[in-house]
Amino acid sequence: MLTQEIKIVMVGTTHPGNIGAAARAMHTMCFSRLALVDPRCDIDAVAYARASGADHILDDCQFHDGLADAIADCDCVVATSARRRSLSWPESDPAGLAEWLQQQAAGSRAAIVFGPEHSGLSNDELQLCNRMVVIPTNPEFGSLNVAAAIQILCYQIFAHQHASNAEDEAASRETRANSAEVESFFTHLQQNLERSGFLDPQKPGQIMQRLRRLYLRSDLTRNEINILRGTLNAIDRRLDR
Amino acid sequence: MLTQEIKIVMVGTTHPGNIGAAARAMHTMCFSRLALVDPRCDIDAVAYARASGADHILDDCQFHDGLADAIADCDCVVATSARRRSLSWPESDPAGLAEWLQQQAAGSRAAIVFGPEHSGLSNDELQLCNRMVVIPTNPEFGSLNVAAAIQILCYQIFAHQHASNAEDEAASRETRANSAEVESFFTHLQQNLERSGFLDPQKPGQIMQRLRRLYLRSDLTRNEINILRGTLNAIDRRLDR
Repeated sequence: MLTQEIKIVMVGTTHPGNIGAAARAMHTMCFSRLALVDPRCDIDAVAYARASGADHILDDCQFHDGLADAIADCDCVVATSARRRSLSWPESDPAGLAEWLQQQAAGSRAAIVFGPEHSGLSNDELQLCNRMVVIPTNPEFGSLNVAAAIQILCYQIFAHQHASNAEDEAASRETRANSAEVESFFTHLQQNLERSGFLDPQKPGQIMQRLRRLYLRSDLTRNEINILRGTLNAIDRRLDR
Repeated sequence: MLTQEIKIVMVGTTHPGNIGAAARAMHTMCFSRLALVDPRCDIDAVAYARASGADHILDDCQFHDGLADAIADCDCVVATSARRRSLSWPESDPAGLAEWLQQQAAGSRAAIVFGPEHSGLSNDELQLCNRMVVIPTNPEFGSLNVAAAIQILCYQIFAHQHASNAEDEAASRETRANSAEVESFFTHLQQNLERSGFLDPQKPGQIMQRLRRLYLRSDLTRNEINILRGTLNAIDRRLDR
């Protein structure tokens, strides 16, 4: 999901400076859609001063009565919370959220919702969300400024996309093996280990699970699978003699 | 390196609000040491209002004439820059910096240096630094507020330590293989591949480099090395027959 498809929603904001600082934070990380739900202040000169050139985000921001109206066009709605809640929503840290958003279908729309400065989101507002993100903080001082929280999440999502793009480039230079190729390697490996006597088919134990875990965490390339299969073929040929 | 061992250095700051917001950002992420080099403003009521309870960081902050004085007690000095510079310093993104700081010896001291709001660090100031971190931003709007930049880096370093602590717990359940054990496995693997005829000692090509890269990126555990060595021993025994 692109940053432009993610709406930042500020609920009940009381300080115009925070709205301006949020606009600046968003623009530095290529976010552009800002929605204000029942703001308790105007977008005044202080807001524009703090936006520091991200004026178009303030000019284009949308006003809504109630959170439900602001998120009506969104497929997924992420609540931000300073603390864990004993609720059953899927919860991520910022890096986990960035990864999850990355995996959502192209064209889907997300909202990330930030509550008022002093109280956070109400329980009724939380009920409208289907995911939650918690930014890790000092256990003794979790008082993140709302614009700072927006900065952290926008940065994390933007940086994750950057990293993904770089990984895509690296991956395009060398193709990942697909699941069938990897499974076929595991089957061959197991036969080979049984043939060499390392693995007792009657008492296989945890060996194959351990080896699977090792190779699966390496994200094998097709080229590497070919080398590994080659080593097994060479052993097979020697044992055939 | 612990967050308490990392000093945040603000050079030539002009807005008291930014100093206060920096203190708040630091305290949310368990940073506590703030140094001000030639500030062009007072730490006034605006600064304390924006600190929002992180008053002790403002109370305890240190004042310096010139950057050299502020970093005299530091082993490594990291410059922040909005843009890449054509210089030969080691450069990281925030995640890379967090990883690098994590690897520094316990007890060493680091400084992360932030320039004035409108101009950034001067070339003379950059010369005093031995690393650089660049926060990725919108190529068309790199104007990060200085307190927002501090928030991002403090968050990234704090979050990385959190993640590392979780990994350490996982690792303590299963010990990483040390370098000698891994190298000894590679030697055995090469002998085995030559014995099976897969590897021609006269024309080894890139095979061993490829296999090294695969296994090294898996961060093998001691247990996994034992399993892999076991598979090689079994093949050796079969070939000995």
